[in-house]
Amino acid sequence: MTIDRTTLRWNGWGPTKQENPLPADSPKWKWVEEVLGMSHLPSTPPVPLQDICLPHCRLSGAIQEKLRGIVGEDQLRTDDYERAFHARGKSYHDLLYVRAGRLDVAPDAVIYPRNADEVLAIVQLCAQEDIALVPYGGGSSVVGGVNAVAKSLGGAVLTLDTTLMTRIIQIDKVSMTARIEAGIYGPHLEEQLQAHGVTLGHYPQSFPLSTLGGWIAARGAGQQSNRYGKAEKWLVSAKLATPKGFWTTEATPASAAGPNLNQLVAGSEGTLGVIVEATVKIHEVPARKDYRGYLFKTFAAGVEAARRINHADIPVAMVRLSDAPETYFFQAFSSSNADGLKARLQRAYLKMKGFPETPCLMLIGHEGAKETVIWAQEQTEEICKRQGALALGTGPGRHWYHGRFNSPAIRDPMMDRGIGVDTLETSTRWSNIANLHEKVTTAISDAISSHLPEQHARGLVLAHVSHSYPDGASLYFTFIFPRQLDREVEQWLAIKRAASDAILMNGGTISHHHGVGTDHAPWLPEEKGEIGMSLLKATKRELDPKGVMNPGKLFG
Amino acid sequence: MTIDRTTLRWNGWGPTKQENPLPADSPKWKWVEEVLGMSHLPSTPPVPLQDICLPHCRLSGAIQEKLRGIVGEDQLRTDDYERAFHARGKSYHDLLYVRAGRLDVAPDAVIYPRNADEVLAIVQLCAQEDIALVPYGGGSSVVGGVNAVAKSLGGAVLTLDTTLMTRIIQIDKVSMTARIEAGIYGPHLEEQLQAHGVTLGHYPQSFPLSTLGGWIAARGAGQQSNRYGKAEKWLVSAKLATPKGFWTTEATPASAAGPNLNQLVAGSEGTLGVIVEATVKIHEVPARKDYRGYLFKTFAAGVEAARRINHADIPVAMVRLSDAPETYFFQAFSSSNADGLKARLQRAYLKMKGFPETPCLMLIGHEGAKETVIWAQEQTEEICKRQGALALGTGPGRHWYHGRFNSPAIRDPMMDRGIGVDTLETSTRWSNIANLHEKVTTAISDAISSHLPEQHARGLVLAHVSHSYPDGASLYFTFIFPRQLDREVEQWLAIKRAASDAILMNGGTISHHHGVGTDHAPWLPEEKGEIGMSLLKATKRELDPKGVMNPGKLFG
Repeated sequence: MTIDRTTLRWNGWGPTKQENPLPADSPKWKWVEEVLGMSHLPSTPPVPLQDICLPHCRLSGAIQEKLRGIVGEDQLRTDDYERAFHARGKSYHDLLYVRAGRLDVAPDAVIYPRNADEVLAIVQLCAQEDIALVPYGGGSSVVGGVNAVAKSLGGAVLTLDTTLMTRIIQIDKVSMTARIEAGIYGPHLEEQLQAHGVTLGHYPQSFPLSTLGGWIAARGAGQQSNRYGKAEKWLVSAKLATPKGFWTTEATPASAAGPNLNQLVAGSEGTLGVIVEATVKIHEVPARKDYRGYLFKTFAAGVEAARRINHADIPVAMVRLSDAPETYFFQAFSSSNADGLKARLQRAYLKMKGFPETPCLMLIGHEGAKETVIWAQEQTEEICKRQGALALGTGPGRHWYHGRFNSPAIRDPMMDRGIGVDTLETSTRWSNIANLHEKVTTAISDAISSHLPEQHARGLVLAHVSHSYPDGASLYFTFIFPRQLDREVEQWLAIKRAASDAILMNGGTISHHHGVGTDHAPWLPEEKGEIGMSLLKATKRELDPKGVMNPGKLFG
Repeated sequence: MTIDRTTLRWNGWGPTKQENPLPADSPKWKWVEEVLGMSHLPSTPPVPLQDICLPHCRLSGAIQEKLRGIVGEDQLRTDDYERAFHARGKSYHDLLYVRAGRLDVAPDAVIYPRNADEVLAIVQLCAQEDIALVPYGGGSSVVGGVNAVAKSLGGAVLTLDTTLMTRIIQIDKVSMTARIEAGIYGPHLEEQLQAHGVTLGHYPQSFPLSTLGGWIAARGAGQQSNRYGKAEKWLVSAKLATPKGFWTTEATPASAAGPNLNQLVAGSEGTLGVIVEATVKIHEVPARKDYRGYLFKTFAAGVEAARRINHADIPVAMVRLSDAPETYFFQAFSSSNADGLKARLQRAYLKMKGFPETPCLMLIGHEGAKETVIWAQEQTEEICKRQGALALGTGPGRHWYHGRFNSPAIRDPMMDRGIGVDTLETSTRWSNIANLHEKVTTAISDAISSHLPEQHARGLVLAHVSHSYPDGASLYFTFIFPRQLDREVEQWLAIKRAASDAILMNGGTISHHHGVGTDHAPWLPEEKGEIGMSLLKATKRELDPKGVMNPGKLFG
């Protein structure tokens, strides 16, 4: 395995040795306490593993023997650490459970196959023995996508960890495709590709801790999706181990030989089989990257610029627009001296230029050949200026780029101090962005306000557009709130329900890139419709008639 | 209906009043005779409709009454012309049958619903009564996609003509999408969109005679697919009338809410239901179009230029590269004075520049904002020149653009003179283009050579790349051959089989944009694999358990 599980936090984000971005003596705690209107920040540490009693392993000795027969003695693990590590993904919802020491959904065992044949044998054994099988890559799902859900109360669950399967099988630099085993982590994949001068370019925020197979299974998006595309766009072909045998999808470009079945794989979330390898589109490592910031007077002006950039034929890697609360929050949170001379001068200048107290920051990234990046950057800057933006140069771009995978690490120390942090995302057509942004913000704010632990406490709702298309864009919401410590799951469910209802009622999708998992499953039927759901279930029945593959996900 | 069926050839291509591009006294006939090595060109006119006896109508009076109850008296047609017109599509294979007066697959009746509700009622009546229902738009399928195939010998077939459903329901110029009824013909669609300053940009060669619904059902490609995308790319959402009711697919941009079911609609070829409307991506009408020609010394050099254009981030609308035989043929065919002074001087110049006798012509099209087109055109020209190309300026581009829908009209007069003309297409990855081009050319040539009517006769095999992608490109083959008049279907089947086998054996897809229909169905299982086919069949069973929707297509 490329990342030793014992070097990662089983109940939080990232390496155990990771520096705490919010140590106890940080002056930021005072600011956070004030912003959230809390009388004090309580201490709410997680329950350590040694204090947790895991449920009894429900896999019989005979089954364990058969599994060991497939993968060898050491590749089947039943110890507490492995079971706890693989119990759930990394959503706020998951962390509430694991931090509380509630591991009732832990897998009965974890298996580490080393190749596709071993995976197939495991899948088929599980189908034969009616054991729930959960494919697990980086385990970074924030929607319950890897949770060890059994088929029924008392049923056994085996989690299949794919991360020993990490080979780059073939690089075709003429067709610019690469065939790669699906268990490879982001950094390992890019390191090997870039040694050949090529890149997949898929950098989700979870990049250091997520795998190729997971990106495809969840229809993930990298931060530079304008250039490199979401997983369903860069996926050329996939090989899955299913209860019915290996399934290799068609690989020819833009075929018209019936529906493109690769699009049934992207978003299948392990419910049809285990993705064991994939052929993906690759690109030359860009000769130049240019990331810079623009300040807009209003969110609407920034959205209009993003829309125009998408409708012009300008090669762009990323367009990311924070709303006013998010711009303010990250500025204030990262600035150690918001009242210093420089900050005051900046505010005075902006005021003189007619900017409001709380403007909106856009980051635009270009990647590619030098001349193309120069030309394209001039074009996007021109579009932004026409919408009244102030060009901030490359400083904000470099700052964002440097810390682009860091945000998730802030959640753990926040959760240690009674604070909840969660994110959710959607997408909609351009003509509906303003409406959806307002409705979801209001829904989350109101739900937080109705579920607060003390009188003067309050929550924060921040949002940004991070992925954009000709017909619309995504909206990504971050909400930070004081936890109701006696009923924190109920509090979260109330907020989640309010946000999800508002999304569906207002023309958004229940997920743009996190996927469905268990958490979004209740809203999927409304989005897909009765016939859509029946078609998904028909494909599921065909490949997995007993329903052993990742139960509880997608279909609920 | 937007095009009166009586103004179109029921047994050939285009309007009845269309000028014959090859009149009897054209000097080109002599050249064709020589090129094909034929001792003479026989006269082989089609059988006129009045000499053909259509099979007895198998729809009972009671059923006809029910159908009239749905659509009104005049919208159900059982006359010979309507039945003959809708018997088959427009493939060479189809024309062999209809020209010979063999209308055994004619529908028993043709129905013209005016709205989605009528379509649904028809679909559900057919499901209830076990009547095969064939959705028919422009009827331009060249793979048997609209042929009136019954469920079983003696079973009734109803053809549903969609072309009364032509409304533009909504144009969203912010999101750049339009919701349109699926029976609208290309010219009508573009006329209405362009009146609002927008375009779909989908211009297949069949554009004047094909419909929105057909483009989606067959995963069609327009000539400017680099810019506007194939149907599966510009499709945002579809509404289908299925035996299980209306099915409206999800419409949010790049959702991660499970697999994208729009991709089950694209390429479904009427087997799941009738596409009644679609939401599609639109663009501003381009301010500038620039089409120009380049001459390459070899096909390989042209392919390399096309590949590099695709891998650079240059907005391009079309890259079309003819191989040497095709370049030669169309030059000779369209030039009335190939031995004139100008032509001889041109040849001398090319020879001096090191070009072979038979170079390869590439046409590159740019469309968009003026500055972008200027910039992009300079970039693509630079790439071509680096591959040794000679820039021919805009003349060849204008010439091609002017006649871009005309080629199909040549087939009818050719078929009147004992000559067969057919096309087929595929796609593959860049690293396999040269191999596939060679293998398929050889397979077609060899098959033609083994099936000739006289000793010194010969066929022609021409090819071009017309659609290109980051990972590969399409190959489009045109073959012209003297017909074996006593066994012309067998001759065609032998050629088709040889080409299709060569495509599948050499890593191509059985179709890049024509679709599967009846003609490619035997090769689909090899391409999709056993599991892929079982998934397609599972979705079919779910929506259409009795199998009334367009039987014989896709699944065979």
